Amino acid sequence: MIILPYVRKAQFYETDQMGVIHHSNYIRWFEEARVDFMRQIGFPYERVESMGITFAVLGLSCEYRASVLFGDTVRVQVEMKACSHSRMTIGYDVADEATGEPRTTGETHHFFFKKKNARPVSLKRAIPELYDIFCSLIP
Amino acid sequence: MIILPYVRKAQFYETDQMGVIHHSNYIRWFEEARVDFMRQIGFPYERVESMGITFAVLGLSCEYRASVLFGDTVRVQVEMKACSHSRMTIGYDVADEATGEPRTTGETHHFFFKKKNARPVSLKRAIPELYDIFCSLIP
Amino acid sequence: MIILPYVRKAQFYETDQMGVIHHSNYIRWFEEARVDFMRQIGFPYERVESMGITFAVLGLSCEYRASVLFGDTVRVQVEMKACSHSRMTIGYDVADEATGEPRTTGETHHFFFKKKNARPVSLKRAIPELYDIFCSLIP
Amino acid sequence: MIILPYVRKAQFYETDQMGVIHHSNYIRWFEEARVDFMRQIGFPYERVESMGITFAVLGLSCEYRASVLFGDTVRVQVEMKACSHSRMTIGYDVADEATGEPRTTGETHHFFFKKKNARPVSLKRAIPELYDIFCSLIP
Repeated sequence: MIILPYVRKAQFYETDQMGVIHHSNYIRWFEEARVDFMRQIGFPYERVESMGITFAVLGLSCEYRASVLFGDTVRVQVEMKACSHSRMTIGYDVADEATGEPRTTGETHHFFFKKKNARPVSLKRAIPELYDIFCSLIP
Repeated sequence: MIILPYVRKAQFYETDQMGVIHHSNYIRWFEEARVDFMRQIGFPYERVESMGITFAVLGLSCEYRASVLFGDTVRVQVEMKACSHSRMTIGYDVADEATGEPRTTGETHHFFFKKKNARPVSLKRAIPELYDIFCSLIP
Repeated sequence: MIILPYVRKAQFYETDQMGVIHHSNYIRWFEEARVDFMRQIGFPYERVESMGITFAVLGLSCEYRASVLFGDTVRVQVEMKACSHSRMTIGYDVADEATGEPRTTGETHHFFFKKKNARPVSLKRAIPELYDIFCSLIP
Repeated sequence: MIILPYVRKAQFYETDQMGVIHHSNYIRWFEEARVDFMRQIGFPYERVESMGITFAVLGLSCEYRASVLFGDTVRVQVEMKACSHSRMTIGYDVADEATGEPRTTGETHHFFFKKKNARPVSLKRAIPELYDIFCSLIP
């Protein structure tokens, strides 16, 4: 399965007075790319939620290499970094769409839990098909 | 009853590349001031919601007179403009805290509905005490 | 000249605890659609700015008809409402992409000014070609 | 020198459809607290910028321990973690103001550069007084 990059224009309201995209927005772009990634692998959030499972964000990190400007188009490449029964790590690589030059990289850490009672759950047991896809995508 | 202005610092992440607070943020400041207003009159959102009632935003308008800069402190004066059984209009006056100079004015229009079934409700019947406060605050 | 609608997915981070897109985000979607509109008519913001002219937001209004949910795709139709030498009004019609059902409508009011000295300017004199396009698009 | 915590109310527009503050907002709270920290030590951003120096964000990390809800008040304790001639790391500890219970921790990494030419600069040479304060605050 090949994951296509998520493509996105940088918006005016995302700039700050330094004239660049404010660093907090990349966290939101990671989320957009993650949502798109789930769609690509056939498990959009709605479907996972309808199965009673949710992913919470446990932590994240982000490294800024170069600025993105209003009007730039970026592509965000999502990569599964790790997956266990209870947790996963997703990586993000943001690059300029036109030149391919790197902009930002990051990771988000998640754990799986039941919506009903907010208790941790084994994804392998709850949605084995999704667990297998996650594992198969780890390079 | 005297409604005190809501005081607030303009944040760096709220600026845009023109070097001023992006115009979309005032809508959020109106909400912050509205939440504070409800607290001041003794009906914080939590209390109203616990009574099964919610306010939805029907519409809004905003006029920009002068820019707010990062680091400026503003005060938002809330004023009840109108209230009927089913609807209300709240006005906002944003001014520089230091100089009193006008920055932005706006209005939000709301209607009242039951949380349980999302149906419109008469505030006068549902929470008469709150309805009376709203009416008493119209200048 | 036919202006195509701007198409956009509603994002998770744009929701609020009522389970719908927070009303402040529509102001940002209007801006995205406006930027796209300028691109469609051959005058992207960068080009207008490189000619020394900028549009400031003087005011706006917004009416909410129905909620947008996370995962919904909307289309925003931009329409020139009015244009004078010094000002213009742009209208926005947000509808569900799948069903065409109305979601939100709004307007933004702008005036034209010189970047160099922040003084009002006649668009008709500064960029007559753009002024003519704006006028030709008023229905 | 004792750094006081930065106190802040969680806003309605910062919630998401899970009913909690969306994780991207903590990055913005870190910035608010950082701005307040600079003010406390006598070097507000405006002053540093007027000396021709700026801090860029190189990277950040964030760990989420427990959710913050609309209406909660949090305090953000800022702590200098490291400082060299060219870089610094700042830590953040977000806790519930009422109970002291931990909510989120994080770090941001910065480097110093000249505004004029965007080149890295030695803070020790550019603003030795500020460099000394940063160093003295490392526990």
